[in-house]
Amino acid sequence: MNKEKTRTEAFPARLAKAIVAKDSRLCVGLDPRLERLPEEVREQAESATEALKRFCLGVIEAVADLVPVVKPQVAYFERYGPEGLAAFREVCKAAKAQGLLVIADIKRSDIGSTCQAYAEGYLGPLSGQPEPGLPWVRVDAVTVNPYFGSDGLAPFFEAAEANGKGVYVLVKTSNPSWLELQGLSLPNLENVAMHVLGLVAQWGRKGVDESGYSYVGAVVPATHPDEAGEMRARAPRTPFLVPGVGAQGGNLSEITSYFDVEGQGAVVNVSRSVLYPEREEGESWQAAIWRAAARFSDELNAVLLAAGKQTGR
Amino acid sequence: MNKEKTRTEAFPARLAKAIVAKDSRLCVGLDPRLERLPEEVREQAESATEALKRFCLGVIEAVADLVPVVKPQVAYFERYGPEGLAAFREVCKAAKAQGLLVIADIKRSDIGSTCQAYAEGYLGPLSGQPEPGLPWVRVDAVTVNPYFGSDGLAPFFEAAEANGKGVYVLVKTSNPSWLELQGLSLPNLENVAMHVLGLVAQWGRKGVDESGYSYVGAVVPATHPDEAGEMRARAPRTPFLVPGVGAQGGNLSEITSYFDVEGQGAVVNVSRSVLYPEREEGESWQAAIWRAAARFSDELNAVLLAAGKQTGR
Repeated sequence: MNKEKTRTEAFPARLAKAIVAKDSRLCVGLDPRLERLPEEVREQAESATEALKRFCLGVIEAVADLVPVVKPQVAYFERYGPEGLAAFREVCKAAKAQGLLVIADIKRSDIGSTCQAYAEGYLGPLSGQPEPGLPWVRVDAVTVNPYFGSDGLAPFFEAAEANGKGVYVLVKTSNPSWLELQGLSLPNLENVAMHVLGLVAQWGRKGVDESGYSYVGAVVPATHPDEAGEMRARAPRTPFLVPGVGAQGGNLSEITSYFDVEGQGAVVNVSRSVLYPEREEGESWQAAIWRAAARFSDELNAVLLAAGKQTGR
Repeated sequence: MNKEKTRTEAFPARLAKAIVAKDSRLCVGLDPRLERLPEEVREQAESATEALKRFCLGVIEAVADLVPVVKPQVAYFERYGPEGLAAFREVCKAAKAQGLLVIADIKRSDIGSTCQAYAEGYLGPLSGQPEPGLPWVRVDAVTVNPYFGSDGLAPFFEAAEANGKGVYVLVKTSNPSWLELQGLSLPNLENVAMHVLGLVAQWGRKGVDESGYSYVGAVVPATHPDEAGEMRARAPRTPFLVPGVGAQGGNLSEITSYFDVEGQGAVVNVSRSVLYPEREEGESWQAAIWRAAARFSDELNAVLLAAGKQTGR
């Protein structure tokens, strides 16, 4: 087996294969908040960061055979400074070791050499030539913020291309105040978010691999299903990351338009509703998490089938 | 002296006093890139993060009597993971110990409890009640990204208000691709950046202290001087952080409109042109940095005086 080739296989193809292999389009968001962790995890840990790590390792163990990808949110780790980032690194490593893809939810962006520092830190050197200490954490993709325009993203794209990684650009978010900026209407009557999606589709044009999708993806919400079809049409080669289901109010049955007829092109992220489920009598916290994840994953497949989209291995 | 009161004195007042005390409106950006550090610093350090730290401590020592504020850029530290953040924490601590204000250039934002995690991590608990481990680093203000709208910033504002800190919201940036999003024209003919500035002014309205400025500031560029006066008029109580001078092409004489008649209301950031100056024969690297910072600081005062604005103690 050619190690070199495996290492640099493009992210969209790896994600598409993992979706087929697991027959799941669910991404489990790792948003560990100390006060919400199971008591037994908190009691056994000697520090907050230790508790966060143990919890996430337990979640990873529970869902590894079920879902293709997890999305650790760096903010919950960064809150604890260097010790938090060390835990973040171990969580990402454990997920990779269990065969999961990892989308680091960092939402960074900046310009010039500053942006390059972020890109190299999370995705590896821009040249694809190994460099000691880069990246500092092993992930498959990151989320980024488009406010700077392409200057604030180009180093991420370059590092992704060089190292077989992916980049999901924030396009439209699931919070009420999305309207204040993303929702501004432009003279051509489209809003800023739709305009940004058009840019994302352009930026990703040359990065399409054999899966039919680009390494430049978009974060789009589950909370505005009326626009899902329009967004898919506007960016047919752009893989979508769809948060907002569960605690944030989005409904699985309304987001089928984000997927293509083969049930590819998107993953749906659920965080809180999977991480902190109601436990049945005598059920372990990990079993409850497995059950919640299985339920979302199965429901998503069911609604896709009902919409005439293929799932299954 | 009432410690409690000193600790929670609002950021705008503290910045205004520091500007008067040092008679300087210069912010030194701490953007340490290993390959650009003085040879003697790199040779003496046993690791990259050690070199970064030593360099920044040397810069802080050199400019502490000259400028009111420094702006460490977290990306250059985060590139090295946990060890990098540990160095970042020490750099911020050293700056505070030398009497400098610290603006952490993090450009974060997210929604809900994720945003809260960032806000608490950098600015302290939202309630103002001490909480162990918060914040993980001692800074006076942060930069944030407005793409989410107010939901993605509210926890930062809350933490800033509770702990006497400041928040600078990205409004318009100095890179060419600012046009792609910030430069989009809205139907009323203003662009997205100017609209965001209007929001920033609104968000900061209740946070104005005795200095006449709010704890909600804006990042505006030195590279579009034609708009400086319009921006000041649009947001009269919003303190400005103005990057883009020096390596990025901005010219000091063209940004006087960002300042009020008393020479307050803005600080101008210079990073590369101060950190990596030409050294004169036999000059130490710290002396060269001091000289570069002094030159920018004096020039800025001179152009303000020429524009009829007051400087001096």
